[in-house]
Amino acid sequence: MATSRSPEIRKDAVHNRWVIFSPARARRPSDFKSKTDASSTANTHTECPFCAGHEHECAPEIFRFPPESTLDWKVRVIQNLYPALSRDLEPLNAERGGGGQVTLRGSGFHDVVIESPAHPVHLADLSPPQIADVLLAYKKRIDQLRGFDSIKFVQVFKNHGATAGASMSHSHSQILALPVIPPTASARIQSMKEHFEQSGECAICQVKQEDLSIHESSHFRSIVPFAATFPFEIWIIPHHHSAHFHNIDPDMASDLGGVLKLMLEKMSLQLKNPPYNMVMHSAPLRTESTELPFSHWFIQIVPQLTVVGGFELGTGCYINPVLPEDAAKVLREVSIQ
Amino acid sequence: MATSRSPEIRKDAVHNRWVIFSPARARRPSDFKSKTDASSTANTHTECPFCAGHEHECAPEIFRFPPESTLDWKVRVIQNLYPALSRDLEPLNAERGGGGQVTLRGSGFHDVVIESPAHPVHLADLSPPQIADVLLAYKKRIDQLRGFDSIKFVQVFKNHGATAGASMSHSHSQILALPVIPPTASARIQSMKEHFEQSGECAICQVKQEDLSIHESSHFRSIVPFAATFPFEIWIIPHHHSAHFHNIDPDMASDLGGVLKLMLEKMSLQLKNPPYNMVMHSAPLRTESTELPFSHWFIQIVPQLTVVGGFELGTGCYINPVLPEDAAKVLREVSIQ
Ligand SMILES: Nc1ncnc2c1ncn2[C@@H]1O[C@H](COP(=O)(O)OP(=O)(O)O[C@H]2O[C@H](CO)[C@@H](O)[C@H](O)[C@H]2O)[C@@H](O)[C@H]1O
Ligand SMILES: Nc1ncnc2c1ncn2[C@@H]1O[C@H](COP(=O)(O)OP(=O)(O)O[C@H]2O[C@H](CO)[C@@H](O)[C@H](O)[C@H]2O)[C@@H](O)[C@H]1O
Repeated sequence: MATSRSPEIRKDAVHNRWVIFSPARARRPSDFKSKTDASSTANTHTECPFCAGHEHECAPEIFRFPPESTLDWKVRVIQNLYPALSRDLEPLNAERGGGGQVTLRGSGFHDVVIESPAHPVHLADLSPPQIADVLLAYKKRIDQLRGFDSIKFVQVFKNHGATAGASMSHSHSQILALPVIPPTASARIQSMKEHFEQSGECAICQVKQEDLSIHESSHFRSIVPFAATFPFEIWIIPHHHSAHFHNIDPDMASDLGGVLKLMLEKMSLQLKNPPYNMVMHSAPLRTESTELPFSHWFIQIVPQLTVVGGFELGTGCYINPVLPEDAAKVLREVSIQ
Repeated sequence: MATSRSPEIRKDAVHNRWVIFSPARARRPSDFKSKTDASSTANTHTECPFCAGHEHECAPEIFRFPPESTLDWKVRVIQNLYPALSRDLEPLNAERGGGGQVTLRGSGFHDVVIESPAHPVHLADLSPPQIADVLLAYKKRIDQLRGFDSIKFVQVFKNHGATAGASMSHSHSQILALPVIPPTASARIQSMKEHFEQSGECAICQVKQEDLSIHESSHFRSIVPFAATFPFEIWIIPHHHSAHFHNIDPDMASDLGGVLKLMLEKMSLQLKNPPYNMVMHSAPLRTESTELPFSHWFIQIVPQLTVVGGFELGTGCYINPVLPEDAAKVLREVSIQ
């Protein structure tokens, strides 16, 4: 039984940061359930600007699928009404103050992807081809954003449920285009580079352990990573080595639609509909050709089951009460009808 | 008014990681209040093992202040009943698997500091000399832990309130002694080192801006940092350049007791008793003498006012809706009777 196992400290070559595994701090892995239900988020149906028929309450649209549709649209990509970065600011050079302080103008793009016209329909409720449409909307928007010289990195992410950060309950994701490469991406590139220089291999291609595996499809492998930061964290990794999510083609998107649906359903059934975050980990836009051999995109899904405390805040070291091989076994075995 | 200001992206030489400041995403800084009250945590008075008279319900005691006291103790340092790391495991060498995976045995120490014998008394309610006792208990325990060759780093931290991670409501903090140097500490050393090599100065000694200042005491300066990760984050920095918190003497501890009380009271009054985390940022135990010139300990206090979403999780880049100079002004001006 997991609870009698000793704690372990692990790291992998993708993030190169220590994670503490403390099975003694948890119930049995199969008893892990979410304390908050993801369905409880602030806004209700009647007042939702993301619903079909309320398009005029939203910030301007960038595009929709299908392009010429009216109320029967499937996916809309719109500007964020309260953008973290401003699309109207010209990028300026960094200002350097004393003491190593650097300031950049907050120029960039912050968009929202509305994943369905209907309020009660969540991403996991969509069919695989419908999820593929959402993925292809991400791709299309990234392809547009790549045209801006000042944009160095695009982050696609999703917050589902209030404790995972969502302020809107209507199913949506966000796209933030940044004039800088963010800390986790720089650290990952550095770590994967060091691993590649030592071993000649891509650290993500090398993840092959049976006991970490949840599922295989024709294009993707779903696993719990060896040094998972959070309990029941899932990575969906393309078999084919590729640096950028935006290289996805319709065939891969359709396979990935099915895989994403399956992972979200397994997670929801096993962990009692937890709030979750989904993050696309892709390389910086203008990745140099020497970096391509060790850059491999993947999707990370994190159910919100624990609270982050002062230890994690201070050290960047996480305490995960569930061993990855235990979480993978539980997720592998929970079956969806 | 802050809400009309443009977003900025900043970093400092302490953490060297980008933070996005988006005043447009917030109410006015002075309207910022906590949504959850820190007083709501699971366990109640009658069933609390940390209360005086319930000492037998706790894991073994390490020491108490005053040493010979019975029910009239002021501070107790005890073992954590559900330790993240185990004090009974002999440290072993790291095991290296394929794909750059590294595993260490989870040996270490995980202690709890009970800050008061009385259940309803929180850290901010104690008198400055009583808070000084808590600080001197940290120091004494770190001095003991430094005796173990396998321990590389000691993290002292506090969770106050359920959404800040606290599972116990009785006022307490924790001490985790690790056989590794955690990610944020390594990154901070590296960043401060680079800054020192370029400028010949310690990045923390250099923080002097008036507009970031909240308060000065004889030994400490309290500020909102230039690239604060979280809204209303506070740093308490010793004037005297020193790598380790455990070098604190009774005179400094007594001054720090007063400063901590003042900062917690200002935060509580201004932000409506928010849950918070407190983190001691000290150098690794066996810091080399070449590292001493750029290692400077400080305390970080983070009120829990926002939720971390997928963007922060994925990128390590935070979106802070309150500009540090605005937060510092508000905290400077709120006055405690
Ligand atoms: N009518 C309208 N038209 C267009 N856009 C509209 C709109 N009404 C609302 N929006 C936007 O829709 C977005 C919905 O996003 P989410 O619910 O995923 O989280 P939010 O960005 O609020 O913050 C969470 O995610 C971020 C990033 O991870 C964290 O910083 C934060 O703390 C967390 O709560 C918001 O960004 C909002 O600005
Ligand atoms: N009778 C007893 N004797 C001795 N010790 C006892 C005890 N009863 C309880 N304890 C210990 O007291 C500690 C109280 O700590 P906190 O309330 O600050 O947070 P906790 O460690 O639970 O987790 C929070 O902090 C950690 C670290 O930041 C996060 O990993 C986590 O998600 C977050 O909820 C617990 O660690 C518990 O094991």
